Amino acid sequence: MLGTRDPAKTLARSAPDAYGNPPLASWLKSQPALKLGAFADAAGHGELVVNATQGTSSLEALEKAGEAGLNGKVLIDVSNPLDFSRGMPPTLFVKDSDSLAEQIQRAFPKARVVKTLNTLNAALMTDPGRLARAEHSVFLSGNDPQAKKTVADLLRSFGWKDIIDLGDITTARGTEMLLGVWLRLYGALNTPEFNFKVVR
Amino acid sequence: MLGTRDPAKTLARSAPDAYGNPPLASWLKSQPALKLGAFADAAGHGELVVNATQGTSSLEALEKAGEAGLNGKVLIDVSNPLDFSRGMPPTLFVKDSDSLAEQIQRAFPKARVVKTLNTLNAALMTDPGRLARAEHSVFLSGNDPQAKKTVADLLRSFGWKDIIDLGDITTARGTEMLLGVWLRLYGALNTPEFNFKVVR
Repeated sequence: MLGTRDPAKTLARSAPDAYGNPPLASWLKSQPALKLGAFADAAGHGELVVNATQGTSSLEALEKAGEAGLNGKVLIDVSNPLDFSRGMPPTLFVKDSDSLAEQIQRAFPKARVVKTLNTLNAALMTDPGRLARAEHSVFLSGNDPQAKKTVADLLRSFGWKDIIDLGDITTARGTEMLLGVWLRLYGALNTPEFNFKVVR
Repeated sequence: MLGTRDPAKTLARSAPDAYGNPPLASWLKSQPALKLGAFADAAGHGELVVNATQGTSSLEALEKAGEAGLNGKVLIDVSNPLDFSRGMPPTLFVKDSDSLAEQIQRAFPKARVVKTLNTLNAALMTDPGRLARAEHSVFLSGNDPQAKKTVADLLRSFGWKDIIDLGDITTARGTEMLLGVWLRLYGALNTPEFNFKVVR
């Protein structure tokens, strides 16, 4: 189930999105297994919750999702604390001595937050084989070893081969700050279809 | 020529360094082509200058090197703005909306600053073939295209194959912030002998 602020309003949109994709209502027609609900519906529905909201709105969206729907669950956080208000490329509104992942973990201490997949483009997240036979890396940060194992199994089911556990949730400071070079590479390579392989 | 604050004091050291290496004076005996001088001697001697000082001291060291020895020259900046005063892993004392490379370029507007090699361990800088047949990436940031070409030629002479020009000196914000994940990978992999390959 996909969560949104106001499902009726989301479904009423008829214009393409910012990337020229058809409106969500059209796409949902081709996805009979997928439901759209309010944030709280989606969180309550899920055995596992993914925060794929814009970083500036993540805490608000998760508050709307509600503790009841998040407590005890694995919460995969793929968001980035990008601040577009100061021009391009965006800066980070939290960094270095704190991270958005830690803000989320502090706001929902009973959720089992795992930061992952925030260092690459959406299309690659569930289909790493689009690039170099999946010979590239993805990172895990989180305080709960079992939650990280659940997420690593999910990532392997998508085809990920090189999954690097960086440690506790504070290590998300590293992967969120990686956006700095990701954004410049996006500019230099003129495509978001790339990823980092940790060669060792 | 290697520059230091006080050559006589440096040569007088008889204890191993912080990593257990023999004192510099012993090593210099095995390097007859290498001279040791004050910062200004080294800058004046060089056709090309490398800032390989600790980030917190880089501006001071370059001020001692002096404008006369830096103006018009390619200045390779491999430093990182690491702040060890707040515990481990270190944070960055400048980041995101500015960088140490930009601070150096602003302090020495006639030097042709190229940020590079700051995203990997010293042993790999001049010998990338130590790892994965040099199948990994190094970045360039700088305002002077000819200076970047000079540096790229030098890097190729070391064996670098994948040299990515990110753009002007502001793109060093990206590679300096990469230290965040580099430091956590150093912790997780328990070795500094790794590098990033940009897979695309």
